[in-house]
Amino acid sequence: MITPPQSRTPLEPERIPATVETLLHEFLDAQIDNAADLPELDLFAQTLRDMIAAGGKRIRPVLCVVGWQAVSHRQPPSEVWRVAASLELFHLFALIHDDIMDASRTRRGRPAAHCSLATRHAGRGDAATLGVNAAILLGDLALGWSYELLHVARPGAAARHLHRAWPLLNALRTETLVGQYLDLVGSGPAAATPPDSATAWRVIRYKTAKYTCERPLQLGAHLAGADPKVLAALSAYALPLGEAFQLRDDLLGVFGDPERTGKSVLDDFREGKNTVLAATALRLATPAQARLLRAGLGNRALTGAQASELRQVVTDTGAQAVVESLIGERFEQALAALDHAPLRPAATTILRAMAAGAVARTS
Amino acid sequence: MITPPQSRTPLEPERIPATVETLLHEFLDAQIDNAADLPELDLFAQTLRDMIAAGGKRIRPVLCVVGWQAVSHRQPPSEVWRVAASLELFHLFALIHDDIMDASRTRRGRPAAHCSLATRHAGRGDAATLGVNAAILLGDLALGWSYELLHVARPGAAARHLHRAWPLLNALRTETLVGQYLDLVGSGPAAATPPDSATAWRVIRYKTAKYTCERPLQLGAHLAGADPKVLAALSAYALPLGEAFQLRDDLLGVFGDPERTGKSVLDDFREGKNTVLAATALRLATPAQARLLRAGLGNRALTGAQASELRQVVTDTGAQAVVESLIGERFEQALAALDHAPLRPAATTILRAMAAGAVARTS
Repeated sequence: MITPPQSRTPLEPERIPATVETLLHEFLDAQIDNAADLPELDLFAQTLRDMIAAGGKRIRPVLCVVGWQAVSHRQPPSEVWRVAASLELFHLFALIHDDIMDASRTRRGRPAAHCSLATRHAGRGDAATLGVNAAILLGDLALGWSYELLHVARPGAAARHLHRAWPLLNALRTETLVGQYLDLVGSGPAAATPPDSATAWRVIRYKTAKYTCERPLQLGAHLAGADPKVLAALSAYALPLGEAFQLRDDLLGVFGDPERTGKSVLDDFREGKNTVLAATALRLATPAQARLLRAGLGNRALTGAQASELRQVVTDTGAQAVVESLIGERFEQALAALDHAPLRPAATTILRAMAAGAVARTS
Repeated sequence: MITPPQSRTPLEPERIPATVETLLHEFLDAQIDNAADLPELDLFAQTLRDMIAAGGKRIRPVLCVVGWQAVSHRQPPSEVWRVAASLELFHLFALIHDDIMDASRTRRGRPAAHCSLATRHAGRGDAATLGVNAAILLGDLALGWSYELLHVARPGAAARHLHRAWPLLNALRTETLVGQYLDLVGSGPAAATPPDSATAWRVIRYKTAKYTCERPLQLGAHLAGADPKVLAALSAYALPLGEAFQLRDDLLGVFGDPERTGKSVLDDFREGKNTVLAATALRLATPAQARLLRAGLGNRALTGAQASELRQVVTDTGAQAVVESLIGERFEQALAALDHAPLRPAATTILRAMAAGAVARTS
């Protein structure tokens, strides 16, 4: 069912997403073929295909494959590609449910899944509710399928290797879900739940640094038989990089170009998202600035003009500059962790380039 | 981590739930112990423990263990208990997400998970939304954990046997989620989406008959090495029984005693649930009765007095009697399927008693 990549040349990270996308499409097609009595699955599979087509950086699958390459000179075997594709399908699940929880209407420049599923039921009085409910189910399906992708037909070498992946996949799932919970509890109207750095850093750790960087790298390395020193070296690189990645995301969520990020520049403000950026702005604010922040952060009805004013306050407090400097520090830490790391040089080169890309990106 | 049952005497079905509950509690305790850096998990684990303590028939775990006994004279090994417990944890996931989708406030006589989680965040302006969002995450966690429960520490005999369970578990998940989608799409204000028997029967097939009866029995039997004839015999029993079970549920949802069912007797009417009962009532109704049904089914603001009137209409049309007769027919079919089935007599005896219990129950 799942075809391994045909190439025998050394893998370039730019080529990893296409292979993972092919695996995902083959998997979805097989699901439809195997459930002729459930034509409703088409709608769900098509929504996932649309999300895949809409873009995304595929950073987790790429890091998983690079994690393998950090340890082994061999081409990644099929189980590495399966885990890489599983991580992307899990990520689709997380995006679908997160967008419901955050009431985000846009994802990757297109309507969020709960909005596009509402459109599929347009004409009904309860289309919006039905869209949300169908998206809850779609997320459940994607979560289940992310594990189904890992079930190989026969016990054997691939099954034994995949067996190794489960403890890390289980940890990744629990960490990510608790990270999302921390994010939800910390967000809201700033007057009631003021942004707080300590919580914001925990959210970053579980919802991004471990989920997006550390665990995917460890998974690939672990499948290649990495020893604890290698896993520790990968963590020392991945955790600061993941922090820098999320801090950049928070800056883009406020100052980014929606045409490039695919996300509204109002959502983080309206949600009252508990970010290091917001907490720093509040900490550094004059009393007048603090009043504006408390009134604006978490105001669901915030207008574009009010958001511009808030953006100016965040800049004026110096919070934007502070966060830029935190990103720079973490970028340096991540690179320094690679200096004497017991990793294959080909992988180290890729990891340096990825760190630079993750930190400097505009989308 | 998971202790097998101590008994060496033949298993009585009454004793299966306690063993499964012990396994679930041990699993939840281990999750908490292993995540000292994530104290927020306590809240999630406690909500699941409360749901387990609130009751439930454990029909899926019982059928899984009985499925094993239909094939093997040996005591069920640990992998059978794991699958049985996994089915119950999956069911908790399904209940949590279903109650969100159906906006049900009561489950097993206690507040639904999204309501109890809202109470845990009382005092915040967004407590209700936070309750729903935390319950989405709790369901995700339970779904993931239902599979984590099946990961044994080492490859070996138990892992090889569990391997066999995956195709059935994967089918069960997809069928149940699509069944819930069919249920959602078919429900709503009767004026816009009139109850329709064909859809109602498909919902019953996927959301109940296969999910609650056929797949759990097949799982236990398959783990014991059942041949296709045995699996077919179990289906011939399970599908009509599952239909009868759901038809009884639909009657209890309208005519039951909330003290005994733990469910509000208004929910099905208010949701405009697409049941065979509602479709039959509408089909048999006089024009005046049809007007009342169309106005009442799916009316979110239905009062107790209006519900009494609707109940009377359902009885007067003869729909209640028709559904009772459908239940009787299916009960007979299920029993007849056992007459010459190649199953061990001890299991057949249990299956006959379970069928009688499922069909005659008041809770």
